[in-house]
Amino acid sequence: MPRKLYDLAGADPNLRFSPYCWRAKFALAHKGLPVETIPWRFTEKDAIAFSGSERVPVLLDGEKTVPDSWAIACYLEDAYPDRPSLFGGAAARAPTRFLNSWADTVLNPGIIRFVLADIFRVIDPKDRGYFRTSREQRFGTTIEAFSAEPEKHLAAFRQSLTPLRTSLAAQPYFAGERPAYADYIVLGSFQWPRCISNFALLEAHDPLFAWRERMLDALDGLGRKALAA
Amino acid sequence: MPRKLYDLAGADPNLRFSPYCWRAKFALAHKGLPVETIPWRFTEKDAIAFSGSERVPVLLDGEKTVPDSWAIACYLEDAYPDRPSLFGGAAARAPTRFLNSWADTVLNPGIIRFVLADIFRVIDPKDRGYFRTSREQRFGTTIEAFSAEPEKHLAAFRQSLTPLRTSLAAQPYFAGERPAYADYIVLGSFQWPRCISNFALLEAHDPLFAWRERMLDALDGLGRKALAA
Repeated sequence: MPRKLYDLAGADPNLRFSPYCWRAKFALAHKGLPVETIPWRFTEKDAIAFSGSERVPVLLDGEKTVPDSWAIACYLEDAYPDRPSLFGGAAARAPTRFLNSWADTVLNPGIIRFVLADIFRVIDPKDRGYFRTSREQRFGTTIEAFSAEPEKHLAAFRQSLTPLRTSLAAQPYFAGERPAYADYIVLGSFQWPRCISNFALLEAHDPLFAWRERMLDALDGLGRKALAA
Repeated sequence: MPRKLYDLAGADPNLRFSPYCWRAKFALAHKGLPVETIPWRFTEKDAIAFSGSERVPVLLDGEKTVPDSWAIACYLEDAYPDRPSLFGGAAARAPTRFLNSWADTVLNPGIIRFVLADIFRVIDPKDRGYFRTSREQRFGTTIEAFSAEPEKHLAAFRQSLTPLRTSLAAQPYFAGERPAYADYIVLGSFQWPRCISNFALLEAHDPLFAWRERMLDALDGLGRKALAA
């Protein structure tokens, strides 16, 4: 059975913008493991119920089913030890987990402010009711109100990236001398606006901008080739 | 020449509260390297001018002079490869750097709100003029105004610790199964209020509270034995 990844898609099945799914796609590419991605919509819970998860990414690899981007990275690292390492060594997994936690709880919640209305715009019409209800409940306001005046939140968002910049002042990649999973975590987050938004989150002189450019060229330009709405 | 560390001290020369100096002391203890700490006050710039730094920690190890807590950790790791590893392996250094950057730019600036007036209270009288002028310039207000009503900032501070908690949900220590430098970075930050403040930053049911308790017992209780003002 070919390796498969359930991957969040928009109305255009080739539009793939989930930061968590990007982490998994970058991790698979880093390992040199081909994968067939299956476009999946928010409301297709039944299609992945077998995995025990209601969210993507979900990886099918032979007999193995692995939901959750972090679990997928760890699974790939353990199952394919002879392929290029995602962490660089066993000891690096734990501190990389902190970057993963920071991206989940600070970076992605920071970016959602700038992309929520775009997500609503690009998703499959059948997802819109679910998406509006669940997100308006989560954020306690309408999609439109939450997304209004993004400029007002831009300075605080850019300020929140300071720990990333400080790291890059000391090393070219978050993983060290070469890109690895620490970088794919952050690149996944930036793929999200890249694929669906025209709002410029990073200034051209920001060292993160240059890092992102290098990362978009990594893995044979996998990130750069992504369809943008 | 015995190994020496210039270590920020209060009016009481045994009161040592700098988060950056604690990182270095924990790192030396992890490596099993005895060190003589030299009490240093903010205004004693001349005493460490030989190092090229105006701040502590500054480590003297034989012929080597190493300022800066991160540089000290890297130096110790490289100079004493046969001692217990601070990072667990070469690949872990880069992602640990992100945690270090986060602690420097988010955690410590968050804690300073709760300890600034205490620092002023415990430092050597000769440091007070310098400390007041430099900090009031940095924060754009008086020490007293900056430190007023800490309760108002407590919820946001505790919220800022979310990435730490998320990491600890997956592993007992930030470095993985056993404490290492990733943990000393964070413990150093918490030693700061522990040594000079009675304000309860962490709630007893916070998983970070339990982690801190375990860490205070680590390294033969080095953190717990610290003098508290």
